Amino acid sequence: MAPLADLYQLTMAYGHWRAGRHRVPAAAELFFRRGPFGGVFALGAGLAEVLRCLRAFRFSAADVAYLRSVLPSTTEDAFFDYLATLDTSEVTVSAVPEGSVIFARVPFLQVKGPLLVVQLLETMLLCLVNYASLVATNATRFRLLAGPNVKLMEMGLRRAQGPDGALSASKYSYIGGFDCTSNILAGKLYGIPVRGTIAHSFIMSFTSLEEVQPRELLPLAGGKPVDLPALAESWLQRVCELLQTPPEKANRGELGAFVSYAITFPCDFQGLLDTYCIRRSGLPNFCAVALALHQLGYRAIGVRLDSGDLAQQSKEIRRVLRACGAHFQVPWFETIPIAVSNDISEQSLEEFSREGSEINMIGVGTNLVTCPLQPSLGCVYKLVEVNGSPCLKLTEDEEKMTIPGTKTIYRLYDAAGHPFMDLMALEDEPSPSAGQELVVHVLGQLGETSKVVPTNVEALHRMYFKDGQVCEPLPSLSEVRSHAQVSLSLLSPAHRQLHEPQPYLVAMTERLHQLLAELRQASQ
Amino acid sequence: MAPLADLYQLTMAYGHWRAGRHRVPAAAELFFRRGPFGGVFALGAGLAEVLRCLRAFRFSAADVAYLRSVLPSTTEDAFFDYLATLDTSEVTVSAVPEGSVIFARVPFLQVKGPLLVVQLLETMLLCLVNYASLVATNATRFRLLAGPNVKLMEMGLRRAQGPDGALSASKYSYIGGFDCTSNILAGKLYGIPVRGTIAHSFIMSFTSLEEVQPRELLPLAGGKPVDLPALAESWLQRVCELLQTPPEKANRGELGAFVSYAITFPCDFQGLLDTYCIRRSGLPNFCAVALALHQLGYRAIGVRLDSGDLAQQSKEIRRVLRACGAHFQVPWFETIPIAVSNDISEQSLEEFSREGSEINMIGVGTNLVTCPLQPSLGCVYKLVEVNGSPCLKLTEDEEKMTIPGTKTIYRLYDAAGHPFMDLMALEDEPSPSAGQELVVHVLGQLGETSKVVPTNVEALHRMYFKDGQVCEPLPSLSEVRSHAQVSLSLLSPAHRQLHEPQPYLVAMTERLHQLLAELRQASQ
Repeated sequence: MAPLADLYQLTMAYGHWRAGRHRVPAAAELFFRRGPFGGVFALGAGLAEVLRCLRAFRFSAADVAYLRSVLPSTTEDAFFDYLATLDTSEVTVSAVPEGSVIFARVPFLQVKGPLLVVQLLETMLLCLVNYASLVATNATRFRLLAGPNVKLMEMGLRRAQGPDGALSASKYSYIGGFDCTSNILAGKLYGIPVRGTIAHSFIMSFTSLEEVQPRELLPLAGGKPVDLPALAESWLQRVCELLQTPPEKANRGELGAFVSYAITFPCDFQGLLDTYCIRRSGLPNFCAVALALHQLGYRAIGVRLDSGDLAQQSKEIRRVLRACGAHFQVPWFETIPIAVSNDISEQSLEEFSREGSEINMIGVGTNLVTCPLQPSLGCVYKLVEVNGSPCLKLTEDEEKMTIPGTKTIYRLYDAAGHPFMDLMALEDEPSPSAGQELVVHVLGQLGETSKVVPTNVEALHRMYFKDGQVCEPLPSLSEVRSHAQVSLSLLSPAHRQLHEPQPYLVAMTERLHQLLAELRQASQ
Repeated sequence: MAPLADLYQLTMAYGHWRAGRHRVPAAAELFFRRGPFGGVFALGAGLAEVLRCLRAFRFSAADVAYLRSVLPSTTEDAFFDYLATLDTSEVTVSAVPEGSVIFARVPFLQVKGPLLVVQLLETMLLCLVNYASLVATNATRFRLLAGPNVKLMEMGLRRAQGPDGALSASKYSYIGGFDCTSNILAGKLYGIPVRGTIAHSFIMSFTSLEEVQPRELLPLAGGKPVDLPALAESWLQRVCELLQTPPEKANRGELGAFVSYAITFPCDFQGLLDTYCIRRSGLPNFCAVALALHQLGYRAIGVRLDSGDLAQQSKEIRRVLRACGAHFQVPWFETIPIAVSNDISEQSLEEFSREGSEINMIGVGTNLVTCPLQPSLGCVYKLVEVNGSPCLKLTEDEEKMTIPGTKTIYRLYDAAGHPFMDLMALEDEPSPSAGQELVVHVLGQLGETSKVVPTNVEALHRMYFKDGQVCEPLPSLSEVRSHAQVSLSLLSPAHRQLHEPQPYLVAMTERLHQLLAELRQASQ
C-alpha cells in the first residue's frame, strides 16, 4: 500500500531533504484536545492497525513515479531516489495499550525518528487512530447506557463510509463493548460473532400460507412430519381468541413467511413483528408459529421490532407473551428475548431505561458508526522536539498550545483504585512513587502548584515499535475488548458519566512546567 | 472480495432456497426518503463502484466455508454448494446516471433478477451508494455556497473512517464540485488534482535564520546566486517599517522556514501565516520573503490561514498585500491568493460571503467528509415485485410505505428548462409526451389529482448492467463531475436553495395510483 499522506507532507519532506535536515532526530506526539461526545474520556484504538501500516510503510516505484508528476518540476531527481529507499527502520513508537481509557491533551502515541519520516507519518497515524478511537468511544457509551445485560449488535454496514469504513466500525465497536455485528465480512476477518435473522423484505415476498414450501416439519424428538402451515393456522385461531383480535386481520403472507422461516430454521425462529400491524397481525402470527413449534419440541429464539415506540411496544409484547405462556402453559414464552432496532441513539437508550422497557437486545447502526454527536475525535499530531530542542507553538488560542519536549506519562490512582490524574514528566525525570507527595501544575491552572499523593502510579505507555519491527506481543481483539472493559471499570463514577462529568486532571511536573515557561519567555 | 452482506440476508437466502423460491423473478428499488441537510435534492453517486462490485459478486470457497460456520447447523449442504455457484449473470440494473440530481422517494437504482440474488445485493448496494451520494451532495452544497470562482480543496483524510473512507470522500467530493484534494492516494488512483504546501510543523522545526540550508538561490533569469536569508532579512526591515510593526517581533524561526521553503520551491512559495502572530510575524515574514523572491524574478503563489477569524483576517491581509504592492511597486502582490482552512463548515462559508471576505481558496476536512449536519442519507432498498405480483408494505408510518410495482421514472421540465416533477409510471404505460396534459397524483396529496403539462420529458434511468456485464459506456470521473454541475444548474433556484427550499413534486400516474389503492384495499 502506498503511504497515506497529504501532498504538503511530501513538499515539506523535500524541504527538509534539500536543507539536509531530513535525518535530524525528531519526536512527535498524538493526542486529542477535548473529550468526545461531552464526556471526559475516550477509548484509544487503532494501534494494531498503526503497527501493521508502519511495517508496510514504503513508496513503491509507481508511488514515486506519481509523486514525480505532482511535485514542483524543480524537485531534484535525487530526492525521488531517496524516497524509494525510505522505511520505518529508524522509527520508535510507544503508545497506550489499545483499548485503554485516554484523556484530552495526554499523548497516547509517541513517535521518534528522523525528522522527515516522523513528519511523513502524521496523516497515516491520524487517519488510523482518529475514527478507530471515536467509534470505540461511541460504543462504550452505548454499552454504559445499556448496562451489562443487554446484548448490543452493530449493524452499520449500510451507513458507513463504504465497505472498509464499515469493517472499522464493526471492529472498534466490538472493542468498545458491542457483542456482535451483522456484517459477515467483519465476522470472517476478525472473528466477531455475527447475528441476524429475518427482514421485512422476506416477509413481504409472501402473500399467503399457500406459498409455503416445503410445508412439513419433523418434531424435534422424531416421529411423523407435521403440516406446519395447518398447525400454525389452528394456533392462530386460539391465540386470536385469547388476545381478542380478529383472526382475519392477521396477515396470511406474514404468517406464511413466519411458517416458512420456522420450517427452515426450527431451532432459530425469530419473528419480525412490524411489517403489518403488530398487535393484530405480527404478534398473533408470531405466537401461533412459536406455539406450533413448541408443540413439536422447538423454542423460538426471539422477536424483533423495527419501528414505532419501541419501549412501549416491548412492554405490551412482554405482556402478551406472558399471557400466552400462562394460558397455554408454556413457561419459556414469557422470557422470549425482545430485540429492537430503528435509528437507535444514546437518547433512545436513555428513554428505554426511563420507561422500564422489556428490551433484551439492541441493534445500532447509523448512530453508532457515523458518530453524529461528534463526527471526529479531532486528534492532532505535533512535533515536540527537533534535534534535541523542545518545540513550542504559541498561538493566541491557549488550548492549541503544544507542550514541548519528549515525555513520560504517568497515570496516578487514588486509594479507591480510580485514576485521578495523568501526569506528564520530562523523559529524564525520575518516576513518581506511590505514597509520595508530588508537586504538579494542573493544565488550566498553570500559575499555581498543586500537591497530590498517589496511592498507585502507572507508566502509561509501552514501547511497541522499534527498528522497523513490532517489539511487543499484541493482544487479540477479544483481549483488547476485555482490557477496555477493565479500563472503563476503573474510572470513578464521576469521570465515567456521559454528560457533564467531573473534569479529569492532567498535569505537568515542575520541571516540565519550567521548560514551558522558559520557552514561552524566549519566544515573546 | 467477499460479497458485502448482513447475516440475515444469508438466512433469508436459505429460506428462499429451501422453499424453492430462490429463482422466482423479483424487482427492488433503491431510494432515500428525505432530502439531506434540509435541502430538497441529492446528488446520486456510487454507480461505477456498484457496477464494479456487481461484476465481481461471488462467494469464494473461503466465504462459503465461513458461512457454513455461522449459519444454523440445520442448514443443508446443498445450499452451500448453490452459494458457490451464485453470480449476477441474471441481474439487470438500471439507474440514474452518476452525478445526476435526485429527489426523495424517487428510485434512482432498480434491480431485477432471481429473488435470492436481488435480496442478497441489498446491503452491498446500500453500502456503496449511501455515503457516496451523501458526501457528493455535501460537496455540492459547499460549491453552491462558495460560488463558482473560489477554489475548494478536500482535506479530510485524517478525519474519515479510515483510508478507504477517505478515498471515497475525495472521489465523491470531486464529483460534487471540489477542485482538488490533499490526499496523494486519491490523486494517484483517480487522477484528481492534488494540492498542499506547508504546515505548522515545518515552520516549528526552525528556530532561526541560521538553520537555513542551502542559503542561495539563482535568479530566475540566471546570474549570480543570491544569499536569500540575508536578502529576506533586509526586506523584513523595510516591510516592518512600512507596516509599523517591530522587526524583533517577527519570529526568525518562521522567517527561516519561509526562506528555506522559498529556496526549495521558488516557483511555488506559499506562506502559512498563523504559527505565531499573524500581524507582527507571519505577514511581515511572508512579505519579506515574497519581495525577496520578486527581486529574483519569482512570484509567490499564496498565503494560508488556519486559525482565528478567517474572513476578518483575509481582509486585513489583503489590505497589507495591497499596501506592500503599491509601496514597493509590485502590482501582482495585491492579487496573491488567500487560502483558509480550520473546521470550515457551511456556516463558515455563509459568514465569509456575509462579511465580504477576500478568500480565494478554501480547504474543507471534517465537515465535508463526516457530513455532521446529517451523517447518513438513509437510503433504503425495497422489493417492489415478486413473481409478477407488486409488493406493498403498509405501515402506520405513511412515509415508510413502499410504492409497489416495477416502474419507469420520468422527469418533467417546465418552459424555463427547470425540472418540476418526477413522475413514476408502471413499466408498461406509454411514455408521457412533451406538451401534453397529464393527470397525476402527487405524493403527500394522493387523494386529489393534479394536471400538468411538461414542456419536456426525460426518461430518468438507463440500463447499466445486463447478463452479468456492464452494458453502457461509463463516463470518466471528470465527465461525471461536469454532468453533476449541469444537472445542478438546471434546478430552479427555489429547489437549489440549501435551506427551506420549495418542495419538489413527486407523483404517480393514475394507473400506478390505482394499483396502490387496490393493494391497500386488499391488505386492509
